[in-house]
Amino acid sequence: MIPVKAYAAQSPTSLLAPFHFDRRDLREYDVLVDILFSGICHSDLHQARDEWGGSLYPMVPGHEIVGKVIRTGEKVTKFKTGDTSGVGVMIDSCRVCNPCKSYMEQYCQEGMTGTYNGYERDKVTIAQGGYSTQIVCDERWVYQVSDKLNLAGVAPLLCAGITTYSPLKYANVATGDKVAVAGLGGLGHMAVKFAVAMGAEVTMLSTSPSKAKDARELGAHHFVLSTDEGAMEKMKSSFDVVLDAVSGNHDYEIYLKLLNVSGKLLVVGLPKDEPKVNPFELIKNRRSIIGSMIGGTVETQEMLDFCAEKNITADVEVIPMQYINEAYERMLKNDVKYRFVIDMASLK
Amino acid sequence: MIPVKAYAAQSPTSLLAPFHFDRRDLREYDVLVDILFSGICHSDLHQARDEWGGSLYPMVPGHEIVGKVIRTGEKVTKFKTGDTSGVGVMIDSCRVCNPCKSYMEQYCQEGMTGTYNGYERDKVTIAQGGYSTQIVCDERWVYQVSDKLNLAGVAPLLCAGITTYSPLKYANVATGDKVAVAGLGGLGHMAVKFAVAMGAEVTMLSTSPSKAKDARELGAHHFVLSTDEGAMEKMKSSFDVVLDAVSGNHDYEIYLKLLNVSGKLLVVGLPKDEPKVNPFELIKNRRSIIGSMIGGTVETQEMLDFCAEKNITADVEVIPMQYINEAYERMLKNDVKYRFVIDMASLK
Repeated sequence: MIPVKAYAAQSPTSLLAPFHFDRRDLREYDVLVDILFSGICHSDLHQARDEWGGSLYPMVPGHEIVGKVIRTGEKVTKFKTGDTSGVGVMIDSCRVCNPCKSYMEQYCQEGMTGTYNGYERDKVTIAQGGYSTQIVCDERWVYQVSDKLNLAGVAPLLCAGITTYSPLKYANVATGDKVAVAGLGGLGHMAVKFAVAMGAEVTMLSTSPSKAKDARELGAHHFVLSTDEGAMEKMKSSFDVVLDAVSGNHDYEIYLKLLNVSGKLLVVGLPKDEPKVNPFELIKNRRSIIGSMIGGTVETQEMLDFCAEKNITADVEVIPMQYINEAYERMLKNDVKYRFVIDMASLK
Repeated sequence: MIPVKAYAAQSPTSLLAPFHFDRRDLREYDVLVDILFSGICHSDLHQARDEWGGSLYPMVPGHEIVGKVIRTGEKVTKFKTGDTSGVGVMIDSCRVCNPCKSYMEQYCQEGMTGTYNGYERDKVTIAQGGYSTQIVCDERWVYQVSDKLNLAGVAPLLCAGITTYSPLKYANVATGDKVAVAGLGGLGHMAVKFAVAMGAEVTMLSTSPSKAKDARELGAHHFVLSTDEGAMEKMKSSFDVVLDAVSGNHDYEIYLKLLNVSGKLLVVGLPKDEPKVNPFELIKNRRSIIGSMIGGTVETQEMLDFCAEKNITADVEVIPMQYINEAYERMLKNDVKYRFVIDMASLK
């Protein structure tokens, strides 16, 4: 067994605190990754506090992981010791269903194995995430990361990055397309960067005037206050794609209206109350609402390669592990641009 | 001017009754069609009774029209006297916007000109529909109809037909796809016929056990009671496409759950209350909800040609014009298999 240091939640109401546990010994296809950086996703907080139900404790959150390979199982071919690598939201799946066979393991018919807060496929071992010094993972779910990139900024690509890259690719976003991004947080800021890199003309929509400057800095060509009814009215039927990364309650209608013929509303946010849909707005212009959940292993590697080519990383605030509980509180106030990333050196 | 006999509603509360009016003289691209059959669409009733607001009176409903060309404008090239032809839900559009230029005139940026209950593009003349002996229409919005088909059964193709054909094509339904159709009425019965003709394995979903036999007769391979929770649970994540032709209030979730990876919920029904969407069900399996409204002129002709090739027509009950008010009452009780069609000989 491989002893690791970590931070864990012991219950829905306890603060995250130091925790020691053992990773399994390497199986033949496993890779041991020494974790350099671990991003903090809003879903870490939801799950640590059991806000979605069914949380398992002790819980070591974290599914935006970047590190160095320090050991490989005997049949591993993708990696060698010293490689920079990443682990994302999943670490396994059934591997035999149609989605798995086509490398869309996130839609595994048996359910993918999450990086934490779930059982591994033995149905006994609780998977533990990236707020830890090392992780053991089958090489299929470990990705090659370019050393040219700022590694702290790479960590959030493994969740916030792929979550927005995948739907933009599914919608075939390309040069000249008009894309709007709603919600400027961890997901939204990546969506802006990707859409710009794909050649789209990008408009940032936000309820907060203070974000206009931020949006421009991220590369957005335009900024519109989504509370400005006149401005929203003017933009009716003018976008090919709207990416909705808003997690607060809202109906889909306000964004649907913005879509041109065959336009697509890409949904990656998860509001608590179920959004309503005006069916007249849906049939008008043959609009679509498309959900999307992270991305498969092949597409995640493609996204990381795209980022290396285009020099794309997340904008991050690097913190020590010991700051995690303050970071959660600040995240609740959206007081971060745009992702906290834990420097794991602080735990070693 | 060309005098015609018709039936019209004079107010939201009046019964439809005999009405005389004049059609315009033929412009150079116009065709004069002597109407043989006119289908009755549920939207005729909604509009005659002003249930969607903004109705214009007197109103001659009807947008499922089949007849014979009896005169042509001097520049008409598509038709000659004696041709069997059809007119559908629209009779004009701006012709210059991008959707119009790509023959998706139903999504015209200025708004298409409906066959009735709207103003023609002069913004003065009220367009009058197919419950009349003749109609004058620009040839772009007149379609070639094969004489091989039962013409009474062709009339509903111009609305119920294209409304279901277009989204099935947009979703690329093809041989071997698993398609479910929810709601067995005018739209649903056409959707079953088209999906079967496109090579799909078709399941009819209905709240009414009595429709099992009807569904099989239409060619559906399977029938499932949508109120049977166990049966619906078993079908989770198993369809490529669900076509939702239900106009009664419902949330999209019950059909969304049935969709496999990248599955598409095609929405053509218009429930009064806005359906809700569970965003977790949407992101699961990368599901889409896609609205669709009739079809453009090129696609409508393609659909009619497909029907001629596959010998597809609507199942209809042919009635005389004088029966219209009873037909409306029966339609409200879903007491028709599956479309009433007026034999216009009854008015001549």
